[in-house]
Amino acid sequence: MPTYRLDIAYDGTDFHGYARQPRVRTVQGVLEEALATALGPVETAVAGRTDAGVHAARQVVSFATDEEISPERLERSLRRLLPEDVTVLSCRRVPDRFHARFSAVSRSYRYTVLNSPAPDPLLRRTAWHVPDPLALEEMSAAAGHLVGTHDFASLCRAARGRSRGWTIRTVLAARWRRPRAKLLVFDVRAESFCHQMVRSMVALCVEIGRGKLPAQAVPAILEARDRNAARGAAPARGLVLWRVSYH
Amino acid sequence: MPTYRLDIAYDGTDFHGYARQPRVRTVQGVLEEALATALGPVETAVAGRTDAGVHAARQVVSFATDEEISPERLERSLRRLLPEDVTVLSCRRVPDRFHARFSAVSRSYRYTVLNSPAPDPLLRRTAWHVPDPLALEEMSAAAGHLVGTHDFASLCRAARGRSRGWTIRTVLAARWRRPRAKLLVFDVRAESFCHQMVRSMVALCVEIGRGKLPAQAVPAILEARDRNAARGAAPARGLVLWRVSYH
Repeated sequence: MPTYRLDIAYDGTDFHGYARQPRVRTVQGVLEEALATALGPVETAVAGRTDAGVHAARQVVSFATDEEISPERLERSLRRLLPEDVTVLSCRRVPDRFHARFSAVSRSYRYTVLNSPAPDPLLRRTAWHVPDPLALEEMSAAAGHLVGTHDFASLCRAARGRSRGWTIRTVLAARWRRPRAKLLVFDVRAESFCHQMVRSMVALCVEIGRGKLPAQAVPAILEARDRNAARGAAPARGLVLWRVSYH
Repeated sequence: MPTYRLDIAYDGTDFHGYARQPRVRTVQGVLEEALATALGPVETAVAGRTDAGVHAARQVVSFATDEEISPERLERSLRRLLPEDVTVLSCRRVPDRFHARFSAVSRSYRYTVLNSPAPDPLLRRTAWHVPDPLALEEMSAAAGHLVGTHDFASLCRAARGRSRGWTIRTVLAARWRRPRAKLLVFDVRAESFCHQMVRSMVALCVEIGRGKLPAQAVPAILEARDRNAARGAAPARGLVLWRVSYH
């Protein structure tokens, strides 16, 4: 069966997350509805299931179908069928072995903090407003402690029925920068992330930036393997699934 | 009477423009309602009345009041009272002769074009999506022709009861640039603008960027002093009132 790869982008504000759920508006639900109209029913796989309110600059979806359709035509149809808060960036035929989730080798996320006394109405859907002064150097040091293979149980929302060890992840890169006076941006890349891992990293780094605890506290927080040792999760609105890499 | 200056920012998407109108949601209406709660009724002046859907990164408002209130307290009260699509960036006491509109010496606007085949859901409220290739050099040449003192009647929406000559304006600077591969940004500064002038400039420059007419056509379009000689107005959503300058 022909296999297709869709690269999509969405504003997560008005979705109850990526994954299909009964009776609520989800990205998967809206996308599969458009695909059903264009092609008939298909089952899609996705690179990263994002939570309610989380955005995607480039999310990857794959599916197989009996229908032969040119990728250009499918792309045009989907752009016409989708609401304005989701779009198809590209559509292509891929080898049958391609799977959006299992073929991915890494995911990158970007988190934006608006660090100014006043909020910014034009950034309210895409940035977390933190009015307190934040020390970039301390946050960068904290990010450095997150890189590598660790048990991230302290920074993952617990999931029932998961075996011990599922929170062991490899973070390939993590970095804070200040591209403009009022913006702090966190870029993080890992093979994969457990649930709420990026937002928990951000909440911890921001507490460190506020001076509530030192960057050197991070290794002990990871070693505790206890959600209560961390600092909760930053709001969904600041988070964007930025890129997914394949071989 | 003590006079105050408020610098405000707003997302214009859900407003019927700045200026108060009966029975619709306007920035002035929402702001004066918050001021009435904080201080009692006041009459405000504004630097630039923006149209429906147009945003402001820094708009300036002034008013006089009998109430003595510290600017810090007023700022805090207004931030608490205003909805999340308007905010107060700063609040200060100013000399009684200060008037947000008449004391202003220039206004700057920024217009953003998303120039890519696919739309971007995260920019849909703040950029005009133009999928066709656009020639930046031609657009820059067109902008150059707009600088200086001209009769901009071709680029202004007609207003009844205006005397001849009200469309003569001085453009101090106008420039297109491409800060990222997919974004084209137009920055323009003038002592003042007539109605729809920036959006008409943008529509004309984009037509020139598409190759529909040459940049050298601009002087003749201005000389025609005829709205029909131009190319309509670009969508409101890409426009932001960027700065207002005072002596």
